[in-house]
Amino acid sequence: MKIVIISPDHDTRAWEDAMWDENQDLEIEIYPDDTEREKTDFILAWNPPEGVFKHYPNLKVVASMGAGIRHLTKNKSLHAEVTVTKIEDDQLIEDLQYFVLTSVLNYCRNIPYYVIQQQQKNWNRISYHRPKETHVGVLGLGNIGLPVAQLLEKNNFKVSGWSNSEKEIENIDTFAGRDQLPNFLKELDVMVCLLPLTDDTEDILNKEVFNQLPEGAYLINVGRGSHLVESDLLEAIEEGTLSGAALDVFQDEPLPKDHPFWENEKITITPHTASVTQPSSVAHQILENYKNLKQGKELKHTVSRKKGY
Amino acid sequence: MKIVIISPDHDTRAWEDAMWDENQDLEIEIYPDDTEREKTDFILAWNPPEGVFKHYPNLKVVASMGAGIRHLTKNKSLHAEVTVTKIEDDQLIEDLQYFVLTSVLNYCRNIPYYVIQQQQKNWNRISYHRPKETHVGVLGLGNIGLPVAQLLEKNNFKVSGWSNSEKEIENIDTFAGRDQLPNFLKELDVMVCLLPLTDDTEDILNKEVFNQLPEGAYLINVGRGSHLVESDLLEAIEEGTLSGAALDVFQDEPLPKDHPFWENEKITITPHTASVTQPSSVAHQILENYKNLKQGKELKHTVSRKKGY
Repeated sequence: MKIVIISPDHDTRAWEDAMWDENQDLEIEIYPDDTEREKTDFILAWNPPEGVFKHYPNLKVVASMGAGIRHLTKNKSLHAEVTVTKIEDDQLIEDLQYFVLTSVLNYCRNIPYYVIQQQQKNWNRISYHRPKETHVGVLGLGNIGLPVAQLLEKNNFKVSGWSNSEKEIENIDTFAGRDQLPNFLKELDVMVCLLPLTDDTEDILNKEVFNQLPEGAYLINVGRGSHLVESDLLEAIEEGTLSGAALDVFQDEPLPKDHPFWENEKITITPHTASVTQPSSVAHQILENYKNLKQGKELKHTVSRKKGY
Repeated sequence: MKIVIISPDHDTRAWEDAMWDENQDLEIEIYPDDTEREKTDFILAWNPPEGVFKHYPNLKVVASMGAGIRHLTKNKSLHAEVTVTKIEDDQLIEDLQYFVLTSVLNYCRNIPYYVIQQQQKNWNRISYHRPKETHVGVLGLGNIGLPVAQLLEKNNFKVSGWSNSEKEIENIDTFAGRDQLPNFLKELDVMVCLLPLTDDTEDILNKEVFNQLPEGAYLINVGRGSHLVESDLLEAIEEGTLSGAALDVFQDEPLPKDHPFWENEKITITPHTASVTQPSSVAHQILENYKNLKQGKELKHTVSRKKGY
C-alpha cells in the first residue's frame, strides 16, 4: 500500500501523521523523493508543479487535499482518464458557515471600522444594519453555499441565492444561470461568493457585476482568489459602487507586501482562514478511496472534470 | 397634556418628533426651560441632574428613555412614591442579541487581531474556535439576557446562564445566586454581562470573579460600565487571567482620551452601540403610559425600585 503526496508549498507532516493513525501498514512517499513512479496509482496533491503527472504513467486517482480541484485539473500533464476526487468535510462546511456569518455581522456592525477608530482614540458612533433589513446574496448553492445561505436565513437575514442550475429552497429566493444574474444582483446589500472555481466562474466578481448591485453594496469573497478581478474591486470602492469588502482569498497567497489591498481601510483581509481542513478529520476518506481503488469499487467524492466541481 | 423631558446631555429632538408623530395635541417642554413645574406629573428622563426632582412636588411618573433606570433611582431627589418605568423595546432586544453574537464570533475568529495585523501587512494565521467547542456564560437571564443566550444556543454554542432567581431553560445550563456563581464560572470560555445595574451587581466584574474563570477566558460587557472594575480588567489581561475583552459600555462615556483601554490591543472598544433605542419605535409606549396615568389605569413597564429592575 503506497500513497504519494505532491504538495511542494506545504509541510505535509500533519497529513502523514493523520494517515498513519488510520493505517499503520501504509507507505507514504513525498514528491520529489518518491520511488518507483511507474507503479504509483494514487496521489494526494495540492498545487502540484506543472508537468509533474507525466512521471506517473499508471496513475488512476489524484485526490485533492481540499474542496477545490482546479489546481489539479489545470495541470496539463493530468490525463483525462485519471479520476479526480475532492475533500468533503462537514467540519469545513460548518467552519465556512460561521466565518461567513461573522463577516456579514461585521459588515452590519462596522467592527473593522471601530477597531481602526480605537487606535485614533475616537468615540464616533455610526448607524448599524439589522439582519432583517439586510439582503444577502449567496453566489453558489452547492454543498457549501447552501448551508451558508441557510444559516444566514436562520439568523433573520433576507437571503437570495444564485447557482448554475435551478434550485428550490425554503425561505430563500433562488436564481439560476447568467440570464437571471442581473435580477439576483439588483437588490443585494451584501454579496457572498462561494462558487467553485471553473472556467465559467473565473473573474466573475468584476466591474460589470459590481455595477449591477445597488450602490454601496458590500462584497465578501470566500471562494477563490481567481473569482475576483482585484483591480475592478479597487476601482469600485474608489468610486463608491461598493462600500467595501471582506476577502479571505487572493490571487497570490500570502498576499504580497506591496499589494494595495493591505492599506485599504474599506477592505478587511483575513489570511485564508475561513476554514482550515484538519488532516485528522479527513484522512479516513482518502484511505477509504484508496481501498475502493484497490478493490475495484466505486470511488467517493469524485469530481466531474467537465463541470469542474 | 404635557410631558417634560429632562436629558441635558442629549439632543432631544428625535424624541420630540416621535411623540408628536403619535399625538399632535401633546405639549412637550424641555428642562430647564419648562414652566409651571408644580403641575408637572409626568417626566421623560435620561441622566437627570442630581436634585432636579425637588422642583416637581406633584410628580407621579418618571419614564426612563432606555432600559436602564439606575440613572433615575440614584438621584436622591426622586421620591419613593414616584413610579419609575423603563423602555421595553423588542427592537432593542434583537439588536443586543445580534451584537453579542457578533462579539462572540469575533472572539472565535480573531477578527480584531486580523484588522490590526492588516495594518502591519502581516499574513499570520492563528487558530480559530468553533461554536460547538466554545462555552459561553451569560450573566443575567432577564428579558435581554435570556433571548441572547437562546440565540447563541441556536448557533451551536454551549451556553450557560446565571441569574438572581432560579430558572429552567431548554438546552441551557442555569445557575442562580452567589452560591452557584463559582460553578457557573469555572468552565466558561467567554463570559457575557447582561445584568441590570443594581447595588448587588455593581462592580461584579472584578478580580475575584475573573480568577474563578478558566485561564485565558474572554469578557464581553454589554451591561453597564459600572458592572466592571476597570483596573481589575487591565490587571487580569496583563497577567493572562483573561485573554481579552470586548467592551461596549464604560464608567465614563465617551471614554476619556487618556484612558488606558484605548491602547490595549486585547480590548475591543465599541462606543455604546450594541443597541440604540430609536424614539420612533418606543414613543408609543411612553404616551400610552401617560394616558394610563391620566385615566387612573395601571402603568406598563414599571420597575421595582427595591430590586432595581
